[in-house]
Amino acid sequence: DRPLTVIAGPCQLESRDHAQMIAGQMKEICAAAGAQYVFKASYDKANRTSLGGKRGMGIDAGLAVLDDIRKTFAIPVLTDVHTEEQCARAAEVVDILQIPAFLCRQTDMLLAAGRTGAVVNVKKGQFLAPWEMGNIITKIESTGNTRILLTERGTSFGYNTLVADMRSLPIMAKTGYPVVMDATHSVQQPGGQGGSSGGQREFAPVMARAAVALGVAAVFIETHEDPDTAPSDGPNMIPLDQMGALIDTLMRFDALAKANPIEI
Amino acid sequence: DRPLTVIAGPCQLESRDHAQMIAGQMKEICAAAGAQYVFKASYDKANRTSLGGKRGMGIDAGLAVLDDIRKTFAIPVLTDVHTEEQCARAAEVVDILQIPAFLCRQTDMLLAAGRTGAVVNVKKGQFLAPWEMGNIITKIESTGNTRILLTERGTSFGYNTLVADMRSLPIMAKTGYPVVMDATHSVQQPGGQGGSSGGQREFAPVMARAAVALGVAAVFIETHEDPDTAPSDGPNMIPLDQMGALIDTLMRFDALAKANPIEI
Amino acid sequence: DRPLTVIAGPCQLESRDHAQMIAGQMKEICAAAGAQYVFKASYDKANRTSLGGKRGMGIDAGLAVLDDIRKTFAIPVLTDVHTEEQCARAAEVVDILQIPAFLCRQTDMLLAAGRTGAVVNVKKGQFLAPWEMGNIITKIESTGNTRILLTERGTSFGYNTLVADMRSLPIMAKTGYPVVMDATHSVQQPGGQGGSSGGQREFAPVMARAAVALGVAAVFIETHEDPDTAPSDGPNMIPLDQMGALIDTLMRFDALAKANPIEI
Amino acid sequence: DRPLTVIAGPCQLESRDHAQMIAGQMKEICAAAGAQYVFKASYDKANRTSLGGKRGMGIDAGLAVLDDIRKTFAIPVLTDVHTEEQCARAAEVVDILQIPAFLCRQTDMLLAAGRTGAVVNVKKGQFLAPWEMGNIITKIESTGNTRILLTERGTSFGYNTLVADMRSLPIMAKTGYPVVMDATHSVQQPGGQGGSSGGQREFAPVMARAAVALGVAAVFIETHEDPDTAPSDGPNMIPLDQMGALIDTLMRFDALAKANPIEI
Repeated sequence: DRPLTVIAGPCQLESRDHAQMIAGQMKEICAAAGAQYVFKASYDKANRTSLGGKRGMGIDAGLAVLDDIRKTFAIPVLTDVHTEEQCARAAEVVDILQIPAFLCRQTDMLLAAGRTGAVVNVKKGQFLAPWEMGNIITKIESTGNTRILLTERGTSFGYNTLVADMRSLPIMAKTGYPVVMDATHSVQQPGGQGGSSGGQREFAPVMARAAVALGVAAVFIETHEDPDTAPSDGPNMIPLDQMGALIDTLMRFDALAKANPIEI
Repeated sequence: DRPLTVIAGPCQLESRDHAQMIAGQMKEICAAAGAQYVFKASYDKANRTSLGGKRGMGIDAGLAVLDDIRKTFAIPVLTDVHTEEQCARAAEVVDILQIPAFLCRQTDMLLAAGRTGAVVNVKKGQFLAPWEMGNIITKIESTGNTRILLTERGTSFGYNTLVADMRSLPIMAKTGYPVVMDATHSVQQPGGQGGSSGGQREFAPVMARAAVALGVAAVFIETHEDPDTAPSDGPNMIPLDQMGALIDTLMRFDALAKANPIEI
Repeated sequence: DRPLTVIAGPCQLESRDHAQMIAGQMKEICAAAGAQYVFKASYDKANRTSLGGKRGMGIDAGLAVLDDIRKTFAIPVLTDVHTEEQCARAAEVVDILQIPAFLCRQTDMLLAAGRTGAVVNVKKGQFLAPWEMGNIITKIESTGNTRILLTERGTSFGYNTLVADMRSLPIMAKTGYPVVMDATHSVQQPGGQGGSSGGQREFAPVMARAAVALGVAAVFIETHEDPDTAPSDGPNMIPLDQMGALIDTLMRFDALAKANPIEI
Repeated sequence: DRPLTVIAGPCQLESRDHAQMIAGQMKEICAAAGAQYVFKASYDKANRTSLGGKRGMGIDAGLAVLDDIRKTFAIPVLTDVHTEEQCARAAEVVDILQIPAFLCRQTDMLLAAGRTGAVVNVKKGQFLAPWEMGNIITKIESTGNTRILLTERGTSFGYNTLVADMRSLPIMAKTGYPVVMDATHSVQQPGGQGGSSGGQREFAPVMARAAVALGVAAVFIETHEDPDTAPSDGPNMIPLDQMGALIDTLMRFDALAKANPIEI
């Protein structure tokens, strides 16, 4: 029943200045709209479609940038981790550790993330039914950590295509944990451009709005001032200059949804 | 940008009194909520999962009941047709002819329905991509009839399961024709009970709300005073006594969506 | 345990001479390979993707051509029907009435086909699980007709794509009725070319061989001397001049499969 | 064109004696049938559906058992790795490192495996199209290692279900690398029993035979003397006492397939 949280940022960290520019603008946009803001960016893209895809600035430089953002803007920061070892290191800096979708069933990753005590955001695998998230929650809870977020990011639907099943949101909400809608990855077309993923940017606001109307706790949106030149996930990112209007509208739906909770 | 239309009724006609009871109650509910109401019921279920499933009262008795409802309540009436021959007969009575999903590519059916001059509501086949509806529209338009509705009712997703892809709604809306969300069939589980279809009634309001937030022209909802005893589609119907609250909430989302149109 | 039957022909009847040319060549090919041959062609394509697609020569002219072929070559003939009325008419000429996949749950069609006493070949809908075919069989058996064939022709797999699930073949075989693999429609890409279906001709022999290795009773293959100019289904048809080698190889796998039956 | 290789063993290592018993029996079975044999077992199940699922004996004890088997029986040995660090350690003992399906796009894993110089068997992710394997191959080849195997193990098909698309086998074969059919995981029902995966053991021979008829280089089959008591993947494993007859039949299809190569 709390107002919508917006988890947003570039897909990957490009530079300190670039990250700060986006964090600054998004903080203002969210403050104006009454949304809580969490900055998101990756220091490493560990599973690029092809070897030639840019990986990012690496964990050392990346965590330093995230640490700066956290302190400069006084906002929570989220990043994704790719090995057990990275969990503890990243948790020294960030508020939320994110488990990538492909890794969502790797038991040791989940345990390592849980043990840090940080909030753990698990992206539901493209190969997973929403009711299977209970097993993943149990793995994390076994560490004593119950600060868990569950994210929908689309499910495999034939080849090179995802579909976002709206039933997934209330099903995951029944676990009692906050549910996040990843509006930009849900419209990804995995491997759809041969050496990289395609995407349908125009449908990201569609996914975000439908999910917010159902009362999700948060939306996850990747954004860039010029998506077509972004080093990753450009095809499905929302241009930064459209984020203000989008979030403004989402907050109206959020208010209505929170006043009229849907239950299954 | 007009307020939401609600197409609702029992899955199949059971008796004159039963149909009138539901039409009367739904008319009141919709009037109170500010929604336009269209009564829906089938005189024949031509593609029951199994031979033992009840077919309905037949075209003669059925059209008489629909005619009565139309005159008694002064409301538009919709029914589905199953052969070319039925189109002209049904169009003498009803306002909207509905093409069942399995038949949505049968050219002669579409032409026969178009030629009646009645509104034609085409349910998108479970096997069809939303962008394929353009070809179906062209078939109907070739008769000179441009009174067309397009309905999403779920897409095959593995066996015995459907998924409702929210992208389908704005994609179909780009044709310029009104888009309908069939909230109850989208949560059907085809053949899921062996000799009949199962369903997930609890998700019908989820589908309806997500679609209304995206600005659809109408929702399609099957209802019954006691779904568990309904002769067909009971598992996915919404109990009649829950329709008032549901439609009331949907109208609030509709007002917000129509004031904030989404475009792709 | 009988040798493989080959159901083959052009997708649609183009002319009497064309049909005879294909029937003649295929009869020779099958005789040389030791396969039983059934000629297949459609007099009407009732569900073309778009209005502009060629429909065919119609039922009167088409049945005359089929009748000629049956008598001239002394081979069984199969055609597909699209309405109840067509069942009795077509059954006067052909040996096997085929129920199209989209129509496989239309009860009245199944009953009308069953009542003719002809063999009824039901194509499993792209939206149907193999275990749902039992309900369809019961509909036909209710007419007293137990001469039934069951055909796999692919299942919806995301948009514009089908997948052929090999499990379907032994599942349907458990009904006791002969199972047919439709190798060319299984590799169709429905609506994949916008105004018509695409296809992956190169995979038709893959599907045929996998199915024959599992011991199916028959394969269904559309063929044409110049598929790229065929009026329908060209993208997934096998060139006529490749049929000899294909069927020859299939018969070797058939012999091995029939000697080593697989059971589930 | 070489005879079929059989990769087989228990899903996870249970004890030294148990592993040796299976390796010994399988070696005899394969020798009798003329198949090359590779022993497969896991020292750790790193992504069990639920926390309560048995993980296995661990890397130290596990590699010791594998080393023994390799020397005792003079057969190649395969195991799966779960982190970059495990690659080099496992490669000291085993001939083939296997990349699990969920991890098939983790670049650092692929590079670490490639750098060992061992054969690398990549299982195609349940979320991946077969034509995306080219990108994965390029990652491994960048290490100078071109000893690569590609394995089909099913693709997501709705929730809790996989489908094995036979087109995948010739598509992957076009890369020039040997293709393996994982017959037992392809019939897994992920998460299908709530806290663990279900499976359809009866279809594993169906998948194996269809793939062998298409000329795959190898089949991958998990086996156990009493699958219902196996610590993992029991529902889809083939009982050890059925392996002799199965492999015998597969070799006949293999000979025919290799003599009649299929090309796309």
